[in-house]
Amino acid sequence: MKIFVDAMGGDFAPQAPVEGAIEALRRYPQIEIVLAGVIPEIEKYLVNCDDVRHRIALLDAPEIITNDESPVMGVRRKTNSATVKGMLALRDKQVDGFVSAGSTGAVLAGGMFRLGRISGIERPALAPLMPNGRGYFLLIDCGANVDCLPEYLVQFGVMGDAYMRGVVGMENPRVGLVNIGAESEKGNALVKNTYPLMEKAPYNFVGNVEARDITGDVADVMVTDGFCGNLILKFMEGVAGTLFGIIKQEIKADPVSAIGGMIAKPAFRRVKKLMDYTEVGGAPLLGVQGAVVKAHGSSNAHAFSCAIGQVVKMIDGHVVEIIEKGVASIAPQQSE
Amino acid sequence: MKIFVDAMGGDFAPQAPVEGAIEALRRYPQIEIVLAGVIPEIEKYLVNCDDVRHRIALLDAPEIITNDESPVMGVRRKTNSATVKGMLALRDKQVDGFVSAGSTGAVLAGGMFRLGRISGIERPALAPLMPNGRGYFLLIDCGANVDCLPEYLVQFGVMGDAYMRGVVGMENPRVGLVNIGAESEKGNALVKNTYPLMEKAPYNFVGNVEARDITGDVADVMVTDGFCGNLILKFMEGVAGTLFGIIKQEIKADPVSAIGGMIAKPAFRRVKKLMDYTEVGGAPLLGVQGAVVKAHGSSNAHAFSCAIGQVVKMIDGHVVEIIEKGVASIAPQQSE
Repeated sequence: MKIFVDAMGGDFAPQAPVEGAIEALRRYPQIEIVLAGVIPEIEKYLVNCDDVRHRIALLDAPEIITNDESPVMGVRRKTNSATVKGMLALRDKQVDGFVSAGSTGAVLAGGMFRLGRISGIERPALAPLMPNGRGYFLLIDCGANVDCLPEYLVQFGVMGDAYMRGVVGMENPRVGLVNIGAESEKGNALVKNTYPLMEKAPYNFVGNVEARDITGDVADVMVTDGFCGNLILKFMEGVAGTLFGIIKQEIKADPVSAIGGMIAKPAFRRVKKLMDYTEVGGAPLLGVQGAVVKAHGSSNAHAFSCAIGQVVKMIDGHVVEIIEKGVASIAPQQSE
Repeated sequence: MKIFVDAMGGDFAPQAPVEGAIEALRRYPQIEIVLAGVIPEIEKYLVNCDDVRHRIALLDAPEIITNDESPVMGVRRKTNSATVKGMLALRDKQVDGFVSAGSTGAVLAGGMFRLGRISGIERPALAPLMPNGRGYFLLIDCGANVDCLPEYLVQFGVMGDAYMRGVVGMENPRVGLVNIGAESEKGNALVKNTYPLMEKAPYNFVGNVEARDITGDVADVMVTDGFCGNLILKFMEGVAGTLFGIIKQEIKADPVSAIGGMIAKPAFRRVKKLMDYTEVGGAPLLGVQGAVVKAHGSSNAHAFSCAIGQVVKMIDGHVVEIIEKGVASIAPQQSE
C-alpha cells in the first residue's frame, strides 16, 4: 500500500509532514510513502529513520499552491505541485492514497479535476469526524460546497454512511439532517426539499437533528450544506475555546478556586483529550475516486501520522467502493 | 408606561409570567402591566403583591395559540388570544410594549400581521443578546426568516445597530456578517451578495466574521439568516451543555479531581453566571412597530421580569424610531 504525502503543505511543513510520515511508517508496517515537495528541504528532516528509510520515496514537486491564489487556476497551472502530482498518481493507481495539509481549495480542485469524482456523485464533500465527548460524529459537508441542491445532500448521506461503515466499522450508521427543528416540515427551502429524498435513500435516515443535539449522540452522520457545516465546525472550536478561556480565567480569579483547579488538573487534561480532534486525523474528501485526506493546516507530526493512518483505514475499509455502490442504488430513485 | 404581558405563554405559565410581572413592577416604578389570559388562573398567583396590585390590569384572553398549530392560522382565528389582543393594543397605542413566552411563530405572525412592520423593513427579525463571557453580542436573525435575501440582511444590520444604541447604550456598534471566511469574496451566494450592500449601509460594518470568532468580541451585532442564526443559537447551547457535562463527568471520575472540583466551585458558579442568558431577558422582535420581546419558553419568574425590563429599555431607548430613521436612510441607496 503506497501513500502519497504532500510534504510542503501545512503551517509546519516540511518538518511536520516528514516526521509524521516516519511515525506512520513505524505504526503501519504494510505501507510505503511517497514524500513530494522540495527534495533538499525534505531531506533535512529525514534523520534517525534508518529503520524505515527504505520505504520512503522522494518526488520532486517544487511548486506550491497557496491559500491566496485561485485553487482552480493553481491546479491548472502548477503542474509541478504535490497536489497535482499526487492526484494524478492516485488516478493512475501508482499510489493508493493521498494526504495534504495544504490549501483546502487546492485539494478540492485537484480532487475534482485531476483525480475525478465517483460516477453518480455530483459534489465531493469534506467530512471530518468531530468529538462529542463520548465518541465522534461525521459532519458532511464542512465547506467544499457552500451552495447546495437537495440531491447533493442526499449523496452526502451515502458518503457519510460509507465512511462510518468502512473506516469506523459501524454497522448501521444513523444519518441525520441538520435543521432548526425536529419536525419534517421545519427548515429552509433546501432542507425541506431534502427531507423527502432522504426518506427514500438507501441508509438509516433518522430525520432532522436540531443544532442543540449535534453533540448529543443522536446521529452518527450529520448532513448539512458546506456553509452551515463550516459554521458548525468553526463555531464549535470557537465556543469551546471561549468556554475553556472563561473557566481558566475564573479559576485563577480567586486563590481558593485556583487551588481547586490545580488539584482537578487530571480531569481537565482528560477533557482536553476527549475533545481533541487531532487524534482522528483530518477531513476525508469523500466522493472522489480515491482515498484523500485533508489534514488540518496546523497539524503537527503526530496529527500527520494520524491522517496517514486514516487514509490507510479508508483503503482497507473500501470506502470508495461502498460509495460507488450506494450512489448507484439511489440513482434510479432520483430519476423517477 | 404600560406593558402587555401574555400570562399564558411559556412552560411555567401562568405562574412565571405573573410572578415575573410582580417582580418587574417592583423594579420599575414607572410601569403598569396588563396581564392577559384566563383571569381566574392569573388571580391564583396574584398574592402578596398589595404594594403593586393597583398597577396591574387583568384582560380576558382565554385562547392560546400553541406550538403545534400554524401560527398564521392561529393569529387569524384565535382573536381572543393574548398574542392577538396584545399586538392590536400595541398597534393602537393602548400599551407601549409586549412580552410573551408563548409560541415564537405566533409572536412573529402577530407582529407581522396585527402590529405591522416599520415602513421600509421587509422582514422583522428575532435578535437575542448572547453571552461571550466578557459581554454580549446581538445575533440577528435567529429564526424568524429561514430563507433570506441580501436586502433583509442589510436591514438586520440597521435593526441590530438600533438595538445596541438604544438599549445597550453603545455609541458605534460594530456590525459583522457571519461567514465562513474573513475575506470579502468568501461565502455562499447570499452573503457574497450581501457584503457589497452592507459596505454602503449606514452603520459601522466591520466585514465578515468567521464562526470561530463569533464569541470572540470582534463585532457587537452578528448578522445572519434565520436558519444559520438558529443553528448558532442552539448549537452554542448544545456545545456548552456537552462541555459542562464532560467536565463534570471527568471531575467526578477520580477522587482527587473531585476534591479539586469541589474547592473550585465558586469559579464554576461565576462561569455559569457569565454564560447565563436569562439575565438579559428574551429575544426582541425587531422591525415591527412597537417594543416586542419573545421570552424563552422555559423562562422562570426572574427571566420574565428581565424580559419586561428589556421592553422598558427598548421603549426608553426609542429603538423603533432609530430603526425607522436607519431604514429610511438606506432606502434611496437600494433603489440606485
